[in-house]
Amino acid sequence: MSKRAGVFITVEGIDGSGKSTQARRLAAVLGARLTREPGGSPGAEEIRKLLVEGAATRWSPETEILLFSAARRDHVEKTILPALAEGAIVVSDRFADSTRVYQGAARAALRGKVDLLHAAMIGLEPDLTFVIDMDPAQALKRGLARGHEEDRFESLGLAFQQALRAGFLALADEFPQRVRVIDGNRSVDAVAADVAGIAETFVRTALHG
Amino acid sequence: MSKRAGVFITVEGIDGSGKSTQARRLAAVLGARLTREPGGSPGAEEIRKLLVEGAATRWSPETEILLFSAARRDHVEKTILPALAEGAIVVSDRFADSTRVYQGAARAALRGKVDLLHAAMIGLEPDLTFVIDMDPAQALKRGLARGHEEDRFESLGLAFQQALRAGFLALADEFPQRVRVIDGNRSVDAVAADVAGIAETFVRTALHG
Repeated sequence: MSKRAGVFITVEGIDGSGKSTQARRLAAVLGARLTREPGGSPGAEEIRKLLVEGAATRWSPETEILLFSAARRDHVEKTILPALAEGAIVVSDRFADSTRVYQGAARAALRGKVDLLHAAMIGLEPDLTFVIDMDPAQALKRGLARGHEEDRFESLGLAFQQALRAGFLALADEFPQRVRVIDGNRSVDAVAADVAGIAETFVRTALHG
Repeated sequence: MSKRAGVFITVEGIDGSGKSTQARRLAAVLGARLTREPGGSPGAEEIRKLLVEGAATRWSPETEILLFSAARRDHVEKTILPALAEGAIVVSDRFADSTRVYQGAARAALRGKVDLLHAAMIGLEPDLTFVIDMDPAQALKRGLARGHEEDRFESLGLAFQQALRAGFLALADEFPQRVRVIDGNRSVDAVAADVAGIAETFVRTALHG
């Protein structure tokens, strides 16, 4: 465990995997501070607007990485680290793993730039990460991707969503100590029970063990 | 010279040095495309708003470097490189040297992060850079710092402006091949004549030599 007083947990997965619902449920169970990316601090929410508004081709992948990193730096400084310093549990709906997976799936060579920026400007890694795993075709069929998420599915294409899923699953091999893959192809309650059980054991050990 | 078809010239200096006036005059003399930082492309101008609006302490120096880098990447991709590819001369009022000097003056350790981001995400350097040199006390006295620039003088303090001046002068030692220091303590016409003479000779050699 890190020397910081609190515990930092992230929830990751493709659009429509139910990860936002699971992050919310987990934060409620743990009495944790719930936050999200991109965003999570007043400044980062301003940067988020630049990232999610306008045409999908508005920014090059390189500019996008820089904007995500700027938002993440502000989020870490203003929201996450102060809460951890007070001993809080922080649950974030997406964090650096999303950038690793999305940019790496777009162009493999970008992953190196993502890692370089993370090492130089962010540094922080979660103590525990849940990947809510679901087949993209299944997510679409179940109607879990809604609103702008549905638009993203359409514009990015199912093959790209499959590449993203593979990227999230690969995180478990790359960071085996902190990443837990959860089968999302079940009821929300069943998934939430799994996530809560693992997190509660982890937090108990981290804070009191 | 670089292999690109055009010529990229930047004009740098402290607020109130008259550098924006000189950049405008030089662009007119050369028939060049005039641009500026932060900004210079529609996306970068949006990022500029985040940088210049709100409290001076809104962003940490690290977040600021990331936002400047994002704006610069967009400016380079969308404005500078396309113009250079067409064989144009581009004159930019500020570029990467301003980030090197401002962040380096704020905290010496930041200069390493600025260099790392520049190498990984920007790469482009000017062919020729003019530093319009002026004593900050003199700039204030001559009333050359106006409007929000005057506010910046007040809030940053004269000692910090002196450190910035020293930083800009140090660029000439660090990049002797491309940096020319121009004495700004003279009439606008006299300074403009110096700048134009050096630039015209440089461009003639670069494009036809």
